[in-house]
Formats: sequence, structure tokens, C-alpha cells
Amino acid sequence: MKVNYPIPHKENTVVNHNSGEVKQVKVKKSLHSHGMLFENELNLSNEYYRNIGKALIYKKPTPVQIVKVDYPSRSKAKIVEGYYKTPSTTDYNGIYRGKYIDYEAKETNNLSFDFKHIFEHQVEHLHKVADMGGIAFVIIYFKKVDEVIIMDIADFYKLWIEGAKGGRKSIKLETFRELGVLVNRGYNPTLKYLDAVDYKYFENN
Amino acid sequence: MKVNYPIPHKENTVVNHNSGEVKQVKVKKSLHSHGMLFENELNLSNEYYRNIGKALIYKKPTPVQIVKVDYPSRSKAKIVEGYYKTPSTTDYNGIYRGKYIDYEAKETNNLSFDFKHIFEHQVEHLHKVADMGGIAFVIIYFKKVDEVIIMDIADFYKLWIEGAKGGRKSIKLETFRELGVLVNRGYNPTLKYLDAVDYKYFENN
Repeated sequence: MKVNYPIPHKENTVVNHNSGEVKQVKVKKSLHSHGMLFENELNLSNEYYRNIGKALIYKKPTPVQIVKVDYPSRSKAKIVEGYYKTPSTTDYNGIYRGKYIDYEAKETNNLSFDFKHIFEHQVEHLHKVADMGGIAFVIIYFKKVDEVIIMDIADFYKLWIEGAKGGRKSIKLETFRELGVLVNRGYNPTLKYLDAVDYKYFENN
Repeated sequence: MKVNYPIPHKENTVVNHNSGEVKQVKVKKSLHSHGMLFENELNLSNEYYRNIGKALIYKKPTPVQIVKVDYPSRSKAKIVEGYYKTPSTTDYNGIYRGKYIDYEAKETNNLSFDFKHIFEHQVEHLHKVADMGGIAFVIIYFKKVDEVIIMDIADFYKLWIEGAKGGRKSIKLETFRELGVLVNRGYNPTLKYLDAVDYKYFENN
């Protein structure tokens, strides 16, 4: 499975970590109308939620396999050989309204979300979280229409299983709109996604 | 604050990531009587708990600030300059019995646990988790006596605050024995620490 990672200090490029191939990305399309990258917007929204004591949700560090470290005198340990590893779980987790919350964040240039953009073990992980009583979903940013939508893992899982059995290998934007909850934007936080979580998991049951 | 990280591929050495200083560590003392490192034992125990569907608890990856990446043709992206970052939160989190669980794991050669071995923001993080209704504790391995003990963050926090106000800057093993819960060993998992969690957070209330 292919995963694209941003290249540090090389803005507007991504690298495929299997092939090493470097691609230019169209900046306008990868930015929100607000001029901020989706992941950055999520991180800042989580920081805001932490600051007001509403939730404790963090992005997990990108896993790196460290092979070689140098120790220049009088300075910090320097990693001189390392490789990106496949993450064991999802990007974000934490606690909200006393419950465990866990989600994977993705963005797409298309008007559908292709299953190849999420790891099988991530879908299974979210499914297990829901089984154990946690809140689990995917949050997708559709760049073309500038919409952020959360979809509960139960809905996502059903379609994903259908895809695995020979059905559609992606979920259309219109299906996200139908089954998911739209995330409203604001000033602070810019992504009011916990309002969508409230609606789906606390008010709508 | 000093943090020691293990050096990959250089067993039995640790490096202080501020000074770059490399130290030999005494192997026998850093191993359990079972011959396994404490962190590894915790990771395997969590893997066991995941496999039997009892809990979903993972260690977070060590955060690395990536500065430079090379892309050798036909091979994976290679990180050629990176540095260890201070972790934002704790080592382990997940879901257990429907609740959010979060803890920090430490080991010590002494018969007390010195507060300098835990970051202030980690203690504050655990305190906030408990405030929000999550399960939060520290789990300490006292190598000399080969005992693993969990202490609820409320007890730990009280003593830590006293230390900050001019009191004791450490917690004695006997205080851990008195206020904490001893973790029993077994074959699978080797650290039956969720039994201690059951006793403290589910049966004893």
C-alpha cells in the first residue's frame, strides 16, 4: 500500500515512501480556503479544545525506525539513519466527555474516498474501538468542495467490507453527506468537529 | 530535564539527549529476573491483551523532529537528519472496559522514584485525564527489588505538589507499596497489570 509523506523543508512536495518518488503538489488544492493545511487545522483545533478543557486529544507522532544515531560533542543526539514505519494505529486519540475517542484523518482531491488510502489494520482498529464502547470515526476533507465530514466507523466499515467482497472500492462524497455529519468551520476552533461528534454520539441517540 | 534514550543497535548503552553523553548500563540490573526489559514486557503484555480482546492499549511512537530526508532511487525515503523531541504526553494510552486509560511507565535502580524522572507536563496531563473521567496512573519498575507497582495519579500528584512546595523530591518504595497496587507476574501476559487496574479502579470503589 502506498503512503505519501510530506517532505520536511520542501514545501509543496510529497514523497512516496515505498518508491522514493517525489511529487510536486498543487498548493491551492492542498490548502483550505482559509489557507491552512487540513492536518494543521485539526492540530490547532485540538490544541484549542485542550486549552479550554473540553477534550484531551493529540496526534500521535509519526513512527520512525531509528537505525543510526550520532553524538556530536556538546550537542544533541542526531539521528543520521532512519525510516518511516507504517503506523500501528490511527492518527488521533484521546478522551472526550469521559469517553475514549479515536479517529483517522484523511484528505482527498476526488469527489469520493478510495479505500486504498486507509490501511486495513487502521479500519480494523477503529472497528475494535467501537466494539469496546469508544467513539471511532474517519474524518475526511474533500478539497474540491471544501467540506469536512465525519463518518462513524460502523457505516464506514459496512461499505469497506462490501468493497472487500467485490463491491465499490470507494465511498462517494454524496454517501458521506448522507451518512456522515458535516463539520462546521469557525474562528476558534477552525474545525468545530466536536460539535459534529456531539450530534452523532451524544445528542442523536 | 534529562531524558535517557536507548541507542539502537548499541545494546546496553543509553544516551542523554541533551548532552549527547553515552553511558554503559549494567545489563543485569536493567533486565527483569525473566531476562526481559521492562518496556518490552509492557509492550508484549499489551499485545497479549489486544489479542484476547481485553484492551486496546498501544505505546506511542517516540517523537522525532525530522530535518532532512534523502530519496535514494529504488529504495525507501531515508531520514538523514533528525532529533529526539520531548514527548507531548505519556507513553501509553488506549481503551479498557469502555474507559480511556493513560499511563507513564518508568524504571528505577533506586528504592525511591525521583520526580526529576518525569516531565511536569506529563504529570499535568495525567491529572487532566483523571479530571475528565479517565483512568490515569504511573507504573514503576523497581529493579533492585524486582517489583512493579502502579500508583493512581491522584496519589502521585499530591506528593508531587508537596515536592514542588519544598517537600520530598521523590516517593519512597514503601509509599508506593502502601498507596499503590503491586503488579503480579505470570506467563501470559508477563505483567498482569490490568488485574491491578481492575482492583484499583473497578473493584475497590
